[in-house]
Amino acid sequence: MIDHTRIRNTALRAKITTAEQAASFIKPGMTVGTSGFTGAGYPKAVPEALAALMESEHAKGNDFRIRLLTGASTGPELDGALAKVNGISFRMPYNSDPTLRARINKGETEYLDMHLSHVAPMAWAGFFGEIDTAIIEATAIREDGSIVPSSSVGNSKTWLDTAKQVIIEVNSWQDSALEGMHDIWTGTALPPHRQPIPLIRPDERIGETSLRVDPAKIVAIVETHAPDRNAPFSPPDASAKAIAGHLMEFFRHEVARGRLPQSLLPLQSGVGNVANAVMGGLEEGPFENLTAFTEVIQDSMLGMLETGKMRVASATAFSLSPEAAESLNARMREFHKKIILRPQDISNHPGLIRRLGCIAMNGLIESDIYGNVNSTQIMGSKIQNGIGGSGDFARNAYISVFMTPSTAKGGKISAIVPMASHVDHITQDSQVLVTEQGLADLRGLSPKQRAEVIIANCAHPDYRPMLQDYYKRARAGSFGQQSPHLLTEALSWHQRFIETGSMLPS
Amino acid sequence: MIDHTRIRNTALRAKITTAEQAASFIKPGMTVGTSGFTGAGYPKAVPEALAALMESEHAKGNDFRIRLLTGASTGPELDGALAKVNGISFRMPYNSDPTLRARINKGETEYLDMHLSHVAPMAWAGFFGEIDTAIIEATAIREDGSIVPSSSVGNSKTWLDTAKQVIIEVNSWQDSALEGMHDIWTGTALPPHRQPIPLIRPDERIGETSLRVDPAKIVAIVETHAPDRNAPFSPPDASAKAIAGHLMEFFRHEVARGRLPQSLLPLQSGVGNVANAVMGGLEEGPFENLTAFTEVIQDSMLGMLETGKMRVASATAFSLSPEAAESLNARMREFHKKIILRPQDISNHPGLIRRLGCIAMNGLIESDIYGNVNSTQIMGSKIQNGIGGSGDFARNAYISVFMTPSTAKGGKISAIVPMASHVDHITQDSQVLVTEQGLADLRGLSPKQRAEVIIANCAHPDYRPMLQDYYKRARAGSFGQQSPHLLTEALSWHQRFIETGSMLPS
Repeated sequence: MIDHTRIRNTALRAKITTAEQAASFIKPGMTVGTSGFTGAGYPKAVPEALAALMESEHAKGNDFRIRLLTGASTGPELDGALAKVNGISFRMPYNSDPTLRARINKGETEYLDMHLSHVAPMAWAGFFGEIDTAIIEATAIREDGSIVPSSSVGNSKTWLDTAKQVIIEVNSWQDSALEGMHDIWTGTALPPHRQPIPLIRPDERIGETSLRVDPAKIVAIVETHAPDRNAPFSPPDASAKAIAGHLMEFFRHEVARGRLPQSLLPLQSGVGNVANAVMGGLEEGPFENLTAFTEVIQDSMLGMLETGKMRVASATAFSLSPEAAESLNARMREFHKKIILRPQDISNHPGLIRRLGCIAMNGLIESDIYGNVNSTQIMGSKIQNGIGGSGDFARNAYISVFMTPSTAKGGKISAIVPMASHVDHITQDSQVLVTEQGLADLRGLSPKQRAEVIIANCAHPDYRPMLQDYYKRARAGSFGQQSPHLLTEALSWHQRFIETGSMLPS
Repeated sequence: MIDHTRIRNTALRAKITTAEQAASFIKPGMTVGTSGFTGAGYPKAVPEALAALMESEHAKGNDFRIRLLTGASTGPELDGALAKVNGISFRMPYNSDPTLRARINKGETEYLDMHLSHVAPMAWAGFFGEIDTAIIEATAIREDGSIVPSSSVGNSKTWLDTAKQVIIEVNSWQDSALEGMHDIWTGTALPPHRQPIPLIRPDERIGETSLRVDPAKIVAIVETHAPDRNAPFSPPDASAKAIAGHLMEFFRHEVARGRLPQSLLPLQSGVGNVANAVMGGLEEGPFENLTAFTEVIQDSMLGMLETGKMRVASATAFSLSPEAAESLNARMREFHKKIILRPQDISNHPGLIRRLGCIAMNGLIESDIYGNVNSTQIMGSKIQNGIGGSGDFARNAYISVFMTPSTAKGGKISAIVPMASHVDHITQDSQVLVTEQGLADLRGLSPKQRAEVIIANCAHPDYRPMLQDYYKRARAGSFGQQSPHLLTEALSWHQRFIETGSMLPS
């Protein structure tokens, strides 16, 4: 099934080799930067060969681990395979692989959870040390030796630019019509030489369609034919539909008040059940000519692009179900005018998000009564996935929305708690909070005003009286009154969950 | 002492009136937007007249309070006078006035503590409701009716643009040579119409030197001659000098490694003892042609501009000692080429801070062992001042530095704690932490790696063993291992302080 015509540069064909041979270029302790973002466009064959190599070295009693830097999450062939053999000593900037997550939560892998827009500039500045090896998945290699990315761009430009040696996986499973869909801005510079990024609309192209690389750095090219880790579509449940309903009502209200245009503003949306419900709500709603300036394009967004409800989506990666991926691959060229994939330092750029005025819609683990949001660490210490791009978008958005069902684990965890056990988004960065119970519009409210609206509108009835009681007593007994708290109780719900398996008193 | 030649528009001279008459345009419940930033350039006469009016109405049993929106902190004639008569129902986005702080911490005034760069775009979007009245201090009114700001720009452009009625205070204490120092970008727009801000160096001018206003909106002009609230210079103590020393060593190291240019990058610095010590260190250090892209210009920065060590400083306000203000006023014109005052949505713009690659240097109240920073709320609930621009700068900086003495209150409070009792800056936004004990370079480190460096390098010896003990037991007993915590103990140091007046065990 491998398509040998994908490598169009004759000189580079001489570098074609096996995954095992390519993996042999990677040495213990190396810092490796790879392509890959939300399970799309990550290298697959070389990491698996590397995992096998590590396993055999470990069996001989030799240490063999690497420092792994990616775009965002990858798939079982990369994070999964390397974590299985405990081959990752340090990982950044985002992960969602269950095997690797377990290593992190056991303290076996150090995990630096970063804003996704920060990675490229800090790598360029040398803050992570030298990048020894880049492993980049490509759709094709052009005549001029440039690299056509596959289903994500992520940090591929940065790793190709900064790595000492480069390995390319050319994956013929990726549709050849992906060529032309990417937009690689080449104006990257370190300060004091940075220039304005000349993008004022999500549908603008400001760069090239392939990645430049010094051919002398390429040490191996591996041909593959393997699908991305595409996760099944999670259909919206009643709770997600209720959340979407509240949000649609809010949008209609804002349009009526003249605070949002009829086509809204460029949307940023995560993945999953709730995000799918929101896209479903928009599909059926009164807003036309929608746009997205976001990280990932998921099934429901693809559907809106197809019906014309959404005009254009700018992102850094796809995140599709296997069915949607297959359907997209069959008609990729039709989407050339509707989808643009950019490097993640552009897709998530704080200045662009502010300039475009994105509507940020992100999920969360918990919010406290003042709107401090925990997106990453369960009970304050156990990593779920990571902050991803939520901080890039939430702080710079026109309106920053956080949404979640009001409870988790069958009601044993409340998403609204007295004090967040970990904070990823401070109150200043959460302006609208939505659960299936209702929507809290927090714009222009002080912390105490926020608490009353959040408890009344968003908390689950099982927890609402407990929150009201806490807040009332905190107002009476707090050290200060800016955001009243009782420090002996503030984290007691989490402690109760750790001890009893439920935040509800027994 | 009033200089009647400051109002050069003949038609507008007809609007000259008394402060009492001007104050009478302000009605109970109004939302009032004023000039003023760090005690510079705020209106002085009308707020005092308004406070007197409120007091007399209160004496009659009538309710008279306003919602007050400013640039940042103001002075005793505005925040102080209105807070004294309990005349502020709601205040944003920053305050440092002790009388008002007490009202907030007693729960008598609602306080919305905001990112300073967020205020203008959200006001434009209508998120704070209608702005009824603007009160703006000016140096002069030009022939064309435009307003020359005084010692700060802050949000004056936004309030003039959005308010229904406008009151101008023309303060002849402000040096007439301030005219020409300001740079007002007129490209403000709501999305989807925002354009790139065409600024690529701190010394560039991209706008006009005065503020446009619809003359029909001006209801009163009041002539004043009153100094700004200029605070005494706080000379660096030994601890501040030690902090500065560590930071200078870090800068030298970064320059030697090629990660910073010899002239560093545009500096952002707060005010106070530690900031003054850092400026002193830079004055004596090997770096030349320094620049600042910051919020405020304080005494020590003025000194560096004078000696030529610093080439240019871009800010939104002055924050000077009375002596420095007098000295500046005597030679204002000399500084025209070295100082640019901009609106705070430009001085603090996330996209510009990222583009210019600022070195952010901010103080803090406490940092936890993972580098989560509390800048605002003592013991998690009592407001000190506010987040100000620290979030704008810290998240978008080339390097974000936080610095503080390792203890406060004579050693009874540790600036390094197990868990921050309130979070303003998440770990992702703090890359270097400095105390007089030493510097922790946190770039590229996972939370656990951070904890070891922070405890070892930054904690005070009185607290270091306690932190080591907590961290060791947290590693053993935490629910997860991403950022280990013991929730029953995490805030116990703060609770001990509340109960005993010291974080140290008795």
